[in-house]
Amino acid sequence: MVLANAYHLYLRPGDMMVRALGGLHAFTRWNGPMLTDSGGFQVFSLARLRTVGEEGIEFRSHIDGSLHQYTPESVMRIERNIGADVIMQLDELIQGQSDVAAARSAMERSLRWLRRCAVEFDRISEEGREPIPPLATPVGAPALMYDIVAPAQALLPIVQGGTHADLRRASIAGILDSGDWIGVAIGGLSVGETKADTYAMLEVCDPEIPRTVPRYLMGVGFPDDLIEGVRRGMDLFDCVAPTRMGRDGTAFTPDGKLQIRQSSHRTDLRPLVEGCGCPCCAQYDRAYLRHLFASDEMLGKRLLALHNVTFLIDLMRDARVALQKGTFDAWSSQWLARYRAG
Amino acid sequence: MVLANAYHLYLRPGDMMVRALGGLHAFTRWNGPMLTDSGGFQVFSLARLRTVGEEGIEFRSHIDGSLHQYTPESVMRIERNIGADVIMQLDELIQGQSDVAAARSAMERSLRWLRRCAVEFDRISEEGREPIPPLATPVGAPALMYDIVAPAQALLPIVQGGTHADLRRASIAGILDSGDWIGVAIGGLSVGETKADTYAMLEVCDPEIPRTVPRYLMGVGFPDDLIEGVRRGMDLFDCVAPTRMGRDGTAFTPDGKLQIRQSSHRTDLRPLVEGCGCPCCAQYDRAYLRHLFASDEMLGKRLLALHNVTFLIDLMRDARVALQKGTFDAWSSQWLARYRAG
Repeated sequence: MVLANAYHLYLRPGDMMVRALGGLHAFTRWNGPMLTDSGGFQVFSLARLRTVGEEGIEFRSHIDGSLHQYTPESVMRIERNIGADVIMQLDELIQGQSDVAAARSAMERSLRWLRRCAVEFDRISEEGREPIPPLATPVGAPALMYDIVAPAQALLPIVQGGTHADLRRASIAGILDSGDWIGVAIGGLSVGETKADTYAMLEVCDPEIPRTVPRYLMGVGFPDDLIEGVRRGMDLFDCVAPTRMGRDGTAFTPDGKLQIRQSSHRTDLRPLVEGCGCPCCAQYDRAYLRHLFASDEMLGKRLLALHNVTFLIDLMRDARVALQKGTFDAWSSQWLARYRAG
Repeated sequence: MVLANAYHLYLRPGDMMVRALGGLHAFTRWNGPMLTDSGGFQVFSLARLRTVGEEGIEFRSHIDGSLHQYTPESVMRIERNIGADVIMQLDELIQGQSDVAAARSAMERSLRWLRRCAVEFDRISEEGREPIPPLATPVGAPALMYDIVAPAQALLPIVQGGTHADLRRASIAGILDSGDWIGVAIGGLSVGETKADTYAMLEVCDPEIPRTVPRYLMGVGFPDDLIEGVRRGMDLFDCVAPTRMGRDGTAFTPDGKLQIRQSSHRTDLRPLVEGCGCPCCAQYDRAYLRHLFASDEMLGKRLLALHNVTFLIDLMRDARVALQKGTFDAWSSQWLARYRAG
């Protein structure tokens, strides 16, 4: 599943523009499943001068400083316009180590916002999509021709509650009380708290969510974090790490992270990972990849990003096989030991 | 044919390193034909503090300021180590509008350097390649395993003489007198002189070179320059333009150059060029490409570079067909009129 971001697409090229251009799948020519995050996380981390109230969030664009408002209702319309298969609720984010009062307040507001999201989501879904107003078509360009049809979408709730077990349980109870969900996301982790706290919260959440409901751990991440998440009942993950780190010259391997710029790779004719079937490892050796990074050639960034994404997909496939065989505990311990030793 | 550059590869990762890693084809995993320019042009345009004498050129690396010497002999060894299929002689470059004395001096020195290149090229070819000294292999990396075999290479001479017809003729006469060549390159054009001067020099050179010998016009170029070159008997061209301009957001079209960042493309669902079979036009529309550039996404740079390279290859294919049909004059006039009107 490819993740896109409502905040970025809302600001540029605009959610109405994405919709006018046929929706996210037609726009990007990606025919597989897609998900949009609400952009709440980006509003909290990128936008300037944000003000959070019960109605929603006011913020200034990080691009041009223009003033915008995000409400649960507007975010539903934005994500509907963008048109991903799975869309996320608007939630309120807090620092990783906030005290219980701040965490409770944000968790409870996120629940209220979820209910407002659900109402708006149902309302939009029922009425379908009204025809879009015609866009100004430049001279020489054909008029926009896409049929605008309402795509089938699913709304996902997000568990909040910081690092407080009772708040996490209350968040899940409130979510399950607010509707039937095809999945439940866990947010507000991997935002500065300790690993022990992350794991503890996952262990709190795991038994509270029905086994049949896929659990999506947001913003995670690294190969070992994925394994630790699967160990604690998580099914879905997302993170910029595989592509961003790839662009920066870091490759995931079963023996830990490999820095391709290191001079030790200068004459190394091995692929990043022996036996890896990714487009990078199938063809290129470390010596050449290092040269591409030393020369700042785009190809290197692309190849390492492709490798890292493939690495995580293969890892999750192996985890699924191990779960099906009932060998997950032994497999994951061995995998983590080797990864962390490297 | 993919062009690589001896100056860049000599400095990084080093010609001995490319050789130790199996030569240019194995290093880059490109199995098609390759050519290396001697790097003379880069020494003149990039290097610092260069000193030109009869023996060769002393220069400081643009990367780290280290001191290097290029001689006809050392360039032959460097290009041999790199291992392209076609290698270029070392020549002396001058400004596009140099006076006749400077142009004559550089042309005559380039001829003397050609003869020294040819002697060294033959000597190296006869003795084959001596075994390379073992490289320090990093701990954990396997020893380098490529069999070092001497590749079949061809040396190409370069016509010089500035914008002076008699010097161009003398250069060609000297080249033809110095050996049998599988091709002849024309250098020192498209370096600041007027288009009229460029065309005049091509018209001077054309009848002087045997019809059976392919002519390679170095550093050209743009679609219209290619057509003008073919009109004047040229067969091969090279330039950074298609990829560099693509990365900068400029696409070649039959109606001239298209700037994808322009707001007129904002809602344009057409491909860059209707009917183009390149990986960009086969899949993506202008609205999305513009968004990729607005968002500084690598994918946009890559797609436009792929388009521009495909565009030039298709153009040369069409030119060849027109030549075979005997319709080149009409075809090229029509093509240029449309391109220049756009």
